[in-house]
Amino acid sequence: MRYLMTFSYDGSRYKGYQKQPEEKTIQGEIEKALETINSNVPVTIYASGRTDAGVHAYNQKAHFDLENKQLTPDKIKDSLNSLLPKDIYIKNIEIVSDEFHARYNVKAKEYIYVINMGEYNPIEKDYVFQYNKQLDVVEMERALKYLEGTHDFKSFAKADDEREDYTRTIVQTHLLRDLKNVNKLTISFLGTGFLRHQIRNMMGILLEIGEGKRKSEEIIEILAARDRTKAGIAANPEGLYLKDVLY
Amino acid sequence: MRYLMTFSYDGSRYKGYQKQPEEKTIQGEIEKALETINSNVPVTIYASGRTDAGVHAYNQKAHFDLENKQLTPDKIKDSLNSLLPKDIYIKNIEIVSDEFHARYNVKAKEYIYVINMGEYNPIEKDYVFQYNKQLDVVEMERALKYLEGTHDFKSFAKADDEREDYTRTIVQTHLLRDLKNVNKLTISFLGTGFLRHQIRNMMGILLEIGEGKRKSEEIIEILAARDRTKAGIAANPEGLYLKDVLY
Repeated sequence: MRYLMTFSYDGSRYKGYQKQPEEKTIQGEIEKALETINSNVPVTIYASGRTDAGVHAYNQKAHFDLENKQLTPDKIKDSLNSLLPKDIYIKNIEIVSDEFHARYNVKAKEYIYVINMGEYNPIEKDYVFQYNKQLDVVEMERALKYLEGTHDFKSFAKADDEREDYTRTIVQTHLLRDLKNVNKLTISFLGTGFLRHQIRNMMGILLEIGEGKRKSEEIIEILAARDRTKAGIAANPEGLYLKDVLY
Repeated sequence: MRYLMTFSYDGSRYKGYQKQPEEKTIQGEIEKALETINSNVPVTIYASGRTDAGVHAYNQKAHFDLENKQLTPDKIKDSLNSLLPKDIYIKNIEIVSDEFHARYNVKAKEYIYVINMGEYNPIEKDYVFQYNKQLDVVEMERALKYLEGTHDFKSFAKADDEREDYTRTIVQTHLLRDLKNVNKLTISFLGTGFLRHQIRNMMGILLEIGEGKRKSEEIIEILAARDRTKAGIAANPEGLYLKDVLY
């Protein structure tokens, strides 16, 4: 039987989503809990994609297979939540077809990136990028428009990411200012898929544009260059959230 | 020279504000940093009051004395912030009169308490009280009105708190629903002073009232009883924030 699981996590105390020997990871914790409820038989989970160390998720998705049909989705959910650390939470489990694959079947993903332009706030240190600078949001919105659409995003890929095709489509972006706190910006990216580090690398340039160090039109040249060194440094992981995965 | 310091902290990794031997506390961390910048001469800080383990502060206040007049308020602030852990932040330091006392001169304090009535959110586990129940906010607002004013709050004091006078004045309360998330409630209390555990004990009753287990009018009887056992259990610390201290 194949199950699809929706889960949220606080990435601040983990070395990222993907299992690594000797490291605390989200995948590692969930697989350990699944093994316990599966009569100590190991279970592999297949997520929509990995997230880096310090990155959070509101609705990450993963599928896995279990032989034992006594375990209903709700029973698995409750057992997992009782075993998992408090910073990982299983929101939903449903039965899916044996053909379903949580990574290959992704239609779109939404990420958000949160910036505090105001005074440093220790309560949010792991949950927003503390930038302490006022940004030009109009210019940033212009830059977002240049990123929308289908482009070769090689300039925004991880430096050592070798692949044939860097083409991805960003369907929609938004820049929102918090209603209660004008210093807090949330930028959202809805796309059919993203390269590793793509959002954080795009955010690096967007912050430089917001500060006035670059012009929004430079996005066009950076995309055309297909060269990682043309884009700036990656923005910090703590402001980044995987918000939704759509199938 | 006497200095007044405004600071914020994430209380989740501390055993409370007040210094204790062998424990990690907010006061302990700040005094250690002050000692370093004061040529290794110990400095005691006097706060507006303590906060319990897990309770946060946006604008806690404390005063301290330093002999060395070379140290300007801004220099002290920057040195402290470079020495302190990232979950404590000095927002401001100013010179005050030698007569000023951060605890005795308090005119009013504001606390807020944040509740999530929606699904458990691991990203906020240390920052809101995850209640997972829909609450009757109209009945809770009625109860808040009964708490406003000058009352003997013995029923809401810490069980082992022995003192002559339990009279305190709550000047104003508010119950706000988050504009972006209707499941998030923030309750604020502005008062001339509060007993230890008073807010969390009042919140315990308010939550029972919100759930329909008690009526708002019962606040009148509970106050009159002057008996800790008449009120319910204390609400968790993680939803509580010291928001402001007024002089």
